[in-house]
Amino acid sequence: MTHDFYMNLAIDEAWKYQFLTYPNPAVGCVILDKNGKILSIEAHKKAGKAHAELEAVSIALQKLNPNLNLPKNPNDLHEFICKNHQNLFKDAIAYVSLEPCNHQGKTPPCAKLFSELGFKKVFIAIEDEHQIASGGAKFLKQNGIEVQIGICKQRAKDLLKPFLKWQKSSFKFFKLALSLNGSAYGKIVSSNASRSYVHAVRSKLDLLVIGGETIRHDRPILDARLAQAKAPNLCILSHQNLDEFDKTIPLFGVPNRKIFSSIPNEAKFVMYEGGENFLKAFKDEMDMFLIFSSSNLNTFENVKLDMKLKPLYKGFLENDTYGIYEKY
Amino acid sequence: MTHDFYMNLAIDEAWKYQFLTYPNPAVGCVILDKNGKILSIEAHKKAGKAHAELEAVSIALQKLNPNLNLPKNPNDLHEFICKNHQNLFKDAIAYVSLEPCNHQGKTPPCAKLFSELGFKKVFIAIEDEHQIASGGAKFLKQNGIEVQIGICKQRAKDLLKPFLKWQKSSFKFFKLALSLNGSAYGKIVSSNASRSYVHAVRSKLDLLVIGGETIRHDRPILDARLAQAKAPNLCILSHQNLDEFDKTIPLFGVPNRKIFSSIPNEAKFVMYEGGENFLKAFKDEMDMFLIFSSSNLNTFENVKLDMKLKPLYKGFLENDTYGIYEKY
Repeated sequence: MTHDFYMNLAIDEAWKYQFLTYPNPAVGCVILDKNGKILSIEAHKKAGKAHAELEAVSIALQKLNPNLNLPKNPNDLHEFICKNHQNLFKDAIAYVSLEPCNHQGKTPPCAKLFSELGFKKVFIAIEDEHQIASGGAKFLKQNGIEVQIGICKQRAKDLLKPFLKWQKSSFKFFKLALSLNGSAYGKIVSSNASRSYVHAVRSKLDLLVIGGETIRHDRPILDARLAQAKAPNLCILSHQNLDEFDKTIPLFGVPNRKIFSSIPNEAKFVMYEGGENFLKAFKDEMDMFLIFSSSNLNTFENVKLDMKLKPLYKGFLENDTYGIYEKY
Repeated sequence: MTHDFYMNLAIDEAWKYQFLTYPNPAVGCVILDKNGKILSIEAHKKAGKAHAELEAVSIALQKLNPNLNLPKNPNDLHEFICKNHQNLFKDAIAYVSLEPCNHQGKTPPCAKLFSELGFKKVFIAIEDEHQIASGGAKFLKQNGIEVQIGICKQRAKDLLKPFLKWQKSSFKFFKLALSLNGSAYGKIVSSNASRSYVHAVRSKLDLLVIGGETIRHDRPILDARLAQAKAPNLCILSHQNLDEFDKTIPLFGVPNRKIFSSIPNEAKFVMYEGGENFLKAFKDEMDMFLIFSSSNLNTFENVKLDMKLKPLYKGFLENDTYGIYEKY
């Protein structure tokens, strides 16, 4: 198979965790043994957890040695693997969507990991331009590892866009849940898996932005219970004064939740949720759109507005399809 | 990686050619070398062309020997490979979505191919219950090849459903093209890739069924030009008498096309195309639904009807998503 094939596996895996790695970038990694057999297809899953490279190596090692008791903490894991790899990665090949980091952050440098384990080749989709983390490719080459940069470059650029935007200023995206025939109405539109993903994303947000119409109509709680995680702070954009809302609406009862009436400057990672009118009002400010489509048709009106979207990624969550789109 | 991982690659590849293999079943095949490296992921593409197994073996051989000049005709190809495999498939592993055939049809038996090339293991998703073609697994075992049946069985069953239905009686499905917000209106809704796939499917049909409303409103040609293939015969279901249609509508000008006003009994593979009303009228008779969703929103009305669908497969064609669904 081609290098593109393996890099696409790495990039697709990373997209599955897009938005969940905030403030880190989404990164994927595929590892092949010296004979070209796939050992693992993994991604960075959460800030503070193992980087994609360490995750992929540790999952591969665990598969090859089911009895190994791997430590959870990334620093301990890195150290453990460097001592217990049994040369299983001698002459191995890695495909990484982003240049492996070369600095000791919350986790040890991934470039060093590949070097210590005896990797032969590392394919990188795109260079890391982050001042502190960069230099991984250079380090790998200095340590005799063959490096090739630029496989699936455009897809890797797309994958990094949210990260680059929230690092520079702020990243805003709109979440919309539709039936297959384009309606945002009806009881629960999306699958459990889609709703769990949205709840997991909510728990990572600096801010969830909603409109007064949704609040009055749906009386939502807007928490992250399906991910068993922290409910996001809210910003309510409404002509109605915050004080005048019915405080028995569940979202007002979430403990320790801050509720704003305008978007604070420090909010870097912001999701808007709503229907047709809210989308029309804010679509021009959005960096991206997260749109779910179920597999069901119903008899409700559809969302009507002209918007041409470019999918950066599409995936499936149970019977739903979801896309992460930019505007053309 | 798990057996499911490789079998899913084979099954996904087969779905890409679903409906295009008529009257044959859609079948996929993945081949790994003795070390577990993927050599090819292929499918049966068209009746009369190589079966999935021969296709996968020949593509793998071509990749390993780019200078080989492989014959096109499946019989010649089979013979050529048996003479020129250079033991490249010694102890290789195959994942096949359907039990390899054991009979000389238009192509030689695939079970024999695996045996002649020295394969070690063959994983089969589902047994072939076809009286003539079956017996492949038994033949493989008799020739010392390890066989395991039942990997991803349900997905392989779903993949075979159209084949089993058109063999038994007739298979009818409805094609619908929607925008992301569920409208079937507007100029050209689907991507070029989606339309090319539909044209390729049309060229395989026994019959394309349409309604009078579509004909009067869209004045279509309903041919297979994007696949550079034969336009399908039509059945026009309408209150209006066939003689009374405006014969300058392009579909009436297609040479050698037969046009029926009811569905002939011998039509085994039948696609319905239309919008909301036609779907409402015939949904209960359909075995499956082929539904395209673009990545664009517009201001047109959506298709409105209550229908819960179960996706058997979803894929992407340029910016579109398409699904092949059953009713729940």
